[in-house]
Amino acid sequence: MYPLGSSIRMHLFGKSHGGCVGCILENIPSGISISIDELNEEMDLRRPKDGIGTPRKEDDAVEIISGVNGLVTNGLPITMIIRNRNTDSSKYDDIAAIPRPGHADLPAMIKWKEHDIRGGGQFSGRLTAPIVAAGSIAKQMLSRDNIKIAAFARSIGNVADDGIRNIGDAFASRAYATRACTADLNIRMRDEIINASKDSDSVGGVVECIVTGLPIGFGGIWFDSLDSVLAKAVFGIPAVKGIEFGGGFGLAGMRGSESNDQYHFDNGIKALTNNMGGIVGGMSDGMPIVFRTVFKPTPSISKEQRSVDISANKDTVISVKGRHDPCIVPRAVAVVEAVTALVLADVSSEEGRR
Amino acid sequence: MYPLGSSIRMHLFGKSHGGCVGCILENIPSGISISIDELNEEMDLRRPKDGIGTPRKEDDAVEIISGVNGLVTNGLPITMIIRNRNTDSSKYDDIAAIPRPGHADLPAMIKWKEHDIRGGGQFSGRLTAPIVAAGSIAKQMLSRDNIKIAAFARSIGNVADDGIRNIGDAFASRAYATRACTADLNIRMRDEIINASKDSDSVGGVVECIVTGLPIGFGGIWFDSLDSVLAKAVFGIPAVKGIEFGGGFGLAGMRGSESNDQYHFDNGIKALTNNMGGIVGGMSDGMPIVFRTVFKPTPSISKEQRSVDISANKDTVISVKGRHDPCIVPRAVAVVEAVTALVLADVSSEEGRR
Amino acid sequence: MYPLGSSIRMHLFGKSHGGCVGCILENIPSGISISIDELNEEMDLRRPKDGIGTPRKEDDAVEIISGVNGLVTNGLPITMIIRNRNTDSSKYDDIAAIPRPGHADLPAMIKWKEHDIRGGGQFSGRLTAPIVAAGSIAKQMLSRDNIKIAAFARSIGNVADDGIRNIGDAFASRAYATRACTADLNIRMRDEIINASKDSDSVGGVVECIVTGLPIGFGGIWFDSLDSVLAKAVFGIPAVKGIEFGGGFGLAGMRGSESNDQYHFDNGIKALTNNMGGIVGGMSDGMPIVFRTVFKPTPSISKEQRSVDISANKDTVISVKGRHDPCIVPRAVAVVEAVTALVLADVSSEEGRR
Amino acid sequence: MYPLGSSIRMHLFGKSHGGCVGCILENIPSGISISIDELNEEMDLRRPKDGIGTPRKEDDAVEIISGVNGLVTNGLPITMIIRNRNTDSSKYDDIAAIPRPGHADLPAMIKWKEHDIRGGGQFSGRLTAPIVAAGSIAKQMLSRDNIKIAAFARSIGNVADDGIRNIGDAFASRAYATRACTADLNIRMRDEIINASKDSDSVGGVVECIVTGLPIGFGGIWFDSLDSVLAKAVFGIPAVKGIEFGGGFGLAGMRGSESNDQYHFDNGIKALTNNMGGIVGGMSDGMPIVFRTVFKPTPSISKEQRSVDISANKDTVISVKGRHDPCIVPRAVAVVEAVTALVLADVSSEEGRR
Repeated sequence: MYPLGSSIRMHLFGKSHGGCVGCILENIPSGISISIDELNEEMDLRRPKDGIGTPRKEDDAVEIISGVNGLVTNGLPITMIIRNRNTDSSKYDDIAAIPRPGHADLPAMIKWKEHDIRGGGQFSGRLTAPIVAAGSIAKQMLSRDNIKIAAFARSIGNVADDGIRNIGDAFASRAYATRACTADLNIRMRDEIINASKDSDSVGGVVECIVTGLPIGFGGIWFDSLDSVLAKAVFGIPAVKGIEFGGGFGLAGMRGSESNDQYHFDNGIKALTNNMGGIVGGMSDGMPIVFRTVFKPTPSISKEQRSVDISANKDTVISVKGRHDPCIVPRAVAVVEAVTALVLADVSSEEGRR
Repeated sequence: MYPLGSSIRMHLFGKSHGGCVGCILENIPSGISISIDELNEEMDLRRPKDGIGTPRKEDDAVEIISGVNGLVTNGLPITMIIRNRNTDSSKYDDIAAIPRPGHADLPAMIKWKEHDIRGGGQFSGRLTAPIVAAGSIAKQMLSRDNIKIAAFARSIGNVADDGIRNIGDAFASRAYATRACTADLNIRMRDEIINASKDSDSVGGVVECIVTGLPIGFGGIWFDSLDSVLAKAVFGIPAVKGIEFGGGFGLAGMRGSESNDQYHFDNGIKALTNNMGGIVGGMSDGMPIVFRTVFKPTPSISKEQRSVDISANKDTVISVKGRHDPCIVPRAVAVVEAVTALVLADVSSEEGRR
Repeated sequence: MYPLGSSIRMHLFGKSHGGCVGCILENIPSGISISIDELNEEMDLRRPKDGIGTPRKEDDAVEIISGVNGLVTNGLPITMIIRNRNTDSSKYDDIAAIPRPGHADLPAMIKWKEHDIRGGGQFSGRLTAPIVAAGSIAKQMLSRDNIKIAAFARSIGNVADDGIRNIGDAFASRAYATRACTADLNIRMRDEIINASKDSDSVGGVVECIVTGLPIGFGGIWFDSLDSVLAKAVFGIPAVKGIEFGGGFGLAGMRGSESNDQYHFDNGIKALTNNMGGIVGGMSDGMPIVFRTVFKPTPSISKEQRSVDISANKDTVISVKGRHDPCIVPRAVAVVEAVTALVLADVSSEEGRR
Repeated sequence: MYPLGSSIRMHLFGKSHGGCVGCILENIPSGISISIDELNEEMDLRRPKDGIGTPRKEDDAVEIISGVNGLVTNGLPITMIIRNRNTDSSKYDDIAAIPRPGHADLPAMIKWKEHDIRGGGQFSGRLTAPIVAAGSIAKQMLSRDNIKIAAFARSIGNVADDGIRNIGDAFASRAYATRACTADLNIRMRDEIINASKDSDSVGGVVECIVTGLPIGFGGIWFDSLDSVLAKAVFGIPAVKGIEFGGGFGLAGMRGSESNDQYHFDNGIKALTNNMGGIVGGMSDGMPIVFRTVFKPTPSISKEQRSVDISANKDTVISVKGRHDPCIVPRAVAVVEAVTALVLADVSSEEGRR
């Protein structure tokens, strides 16, 4: 259940208020030395910081319980678990009857009437923790081929970063709590979040991800195309509502003579522009992969909203209690990087057969 | 190769200048009467019309060679083939050395050095013909549950349709060569295409797709979410560069109190808005599914472009010959509908096991 | 539906009294020159001969409709169809109410009450024709690595071949209608079949298959072990009721000191015996793969048998009309070779990822 | 890696001398109350008893770390781990150069030259512990539909049980250390094992498995047939060298009039015999499923055997040290039951889609 990938494949398990969450990662080659420091750094990037996320504390210690000898992969499935602490299931009581707008509650309660899966936390952002852990191992595998992945906050609420950004800028965003590329943007994006929070409200934003180092031709075609498998993975992240590559929706208004990335020789074959976001025909054209993905505003807000009481069959209102992130974007950047790494590791493994 | 789906699964085969193209469609239930009239109507919607597409004539006659008794499905895999006629492979000669900008040529020629797959037409839009045929069968299966799918041209080049559109409008677009929703927009979009064509250039656009009739809870979660599987399928269509659901990228600038679709009772539970595009937590919330997907301008233009001669290792220019569509959007609308139908039929089949 | 394999994957379609039967073969590498003579020779080995099979004539002409340029594979899915002629569906009328003992009729009529799948010929041995065609391509692919496959009739009815046989003997069986290894055995096995036929009865037998040329270590482990995947494929052939490798059921009464194949150096590492049938731990140990598979007597006999009339809910008798093989073993030898070739080609393709 | 099944799917992980072994079991429906007593009883049946197995003690405590609320399944993947204790990896030192006859050593050391997977215990019978745990959950799921599974020792070495046995006899074998059906056979089979052990040798045997309660029509066709999927699973158990259903290899010498199971009405449709072992055309015919599987003698014997020293490139001898079972059959009975339960649960889940 909840698998991602074909060859290098991740299976999630657990839920936010059970004993643990975790994942199994299949088909990672043997002989890779895992840096726990790097893994912990990724886990830390997913944590709320600087007063702009949930005050809920999670220590997120990752236990690797199979698939390694010492810290070297041995070719067997890698199982990682993260124990749950600091759980507070009382906040799920409301779900019994009143679906929270923007959440999975309504379809879940209609679909799974009797069982715990309804409010069981299997939709919880908590499951993104093992995704980030798995993604870190995928990154470490990819780095052997000099493939690099970095993402950053392109916008939060109405604060947009209009700069031209490369992968160096994206790596620089690791220094900032909002994952903005610059100190100035970090301050302005942080203010945007804090203002929403003060209003008992929330904001969304856009994450941009950049990948360098893929060889020309990397990827499949038709429904195995690189953009297909990346999009599938990215929409698996809660709150994502759109994805675009390169020029994206802006390409609709261009002429072909403008959008086509023309080629020339410049220390190898290079494109003069990157409107395709590094992918043509489903495969890498040697330019950096560039995609943007939009996250909706966090649906959990304490502001009063209209909803329905299903048990009483009547209209009602709801104000979502509990400690929620007023903006998920800063923490989601690490998750976008992680699923991208998992997809690229998987495709890399598939390439051997194409 | 080139499969789509898990349970109801389509496999494409063939190529544009071989003997035929076709597909196999697995696990369609037995007992469905296939209307060949409906199937042919779908095939016709994929054909260029009214002087705005390629003058290449394809009669696209679909032969169903297995999976039916008479015209009733018998539960066995449905194999359909479409013979190729009117092929002109001379235009592929250039590919030997000079990659066309915006095409799959560059990665394909680097990746498959020796074999025919390089210029073999397996990237050809011709393979969307069996997709449309398979999609028609999926639509006929879904119509038993009153699930309806219709798409239309939301924009072509700089002509955008700013109206609020429902599925009735989308069905109305079948009357117009551009797949615009109104006669007026059809004229303006057609002009946009013809102007580009006169300039030896091309334009892109946006296709919007609407689905009604899905029960609340329809779809999976995490990487099996309804948006994940739709996005994977849509990016399998050549020239797609982005997809967004409901409010899409516009959600980035909203507050949660604005973006959340609040609920009330109105002949069942209904949302007051549809910013989520009908999907929360990966499942249908009972509102129409609404997504938009952007198509880049057709890369094949006769205008001169810079490229490289790989055999001679030097810069050069290219002007793409042949009869190409100056805008793929009008014909792509049928393909978007088809992959959507295939995905929904597949998920519908999977639902039995969830 | 009816797929075999993971990477190199065959999908069957069609049925015995529809328009055609056929298959799609995915992921065969490009660049393999297909010998149609070899393919036709395999098809011919599956045909009844010498008065010991059904007098029904099938010309079994294989049309390759995708996946090749000329006769060289191009990396795309290979689709092959065989048109049905000489069909006589009247013999299926009985199935409407009286299940034939030993056939799939009873479960099929209970399971699929209304639809044609019930008596639809999808259980028909006719579908082994595309299996043999696909197997021939797999063999031609494997022969590049000098992997050879040959099978023969180890027993028919009460005539058993007690000789020690190697792959050369198995190839020699191609000269004989019964697929016995020697002329003498061929005569005796043929008599066994003809005697059964004269009694309006049928006989079974055992097919033995030998594979040479696999490298040490070829195969997977646990549920991907070479014996697992071979057994799965072989039980997919109608009428198979058992399989054993090497010493097989005879190993139950041995001591470990006797059954273990001890090693020595003899132009490389060799085992002194082959009780393991060439497989330890799920992988090749470098000795020839040897397995035997038992085919039950053909269930279709004209002798009167007890059965039930399901529509009338009472006991009755049945005498199966039509032209049936009194022994399937001679023709099944080609099918065992074919599925073995398909499995080995698939595992060979998977090996790249292990 | 090491997955079993399509819908209800088990993934094994871990190895005998790492931290733990375990499994993930996907798609078990929610709402099943797991009896830990039953699970522990199954685990106990896999343990060596009465002086006839390895003296190595394993407490095999199963921890369920995801997929349940309390002890009720919640629809999420069930993860179970069993910590390793009492490990003694010194015995693996020999593997560095001298392959043990009959073991996976030779192919493993040729295939994985450098990495731990070579001698890593991933072939260890220890991994059958999580299989039995998973199988117990599958059994508990199947028992809701009154599907029962029981196996027993049909022979050990030269002691064969010639009785006609039904599922009641098979359940009775749980009382005996050898899994014989009667006290007398238990004594004789135990002697057979002890005698082999005294000779520093080992013996094999045959396990027979019986399943009741499957509805007519249960199972798939062609390569999804019930015998195909059972055979695949059974060959995944270490040391299995053959499987036969019903009359098995004995059918080769029968006439069709004798082997066909004829039908009559007797409190529903029944067959008069069960030569088919309950399966025709890949599906249940309503009779009990009966199959036998042969286990080779345990390859680990302290008797001296010929082998090769790969590092020195010369012939040598080996005497396998350590505490090994002189016969695996008594413990394997529980494993055969477990994989059978997993396969039937999986097929049961697939049936919904057929």
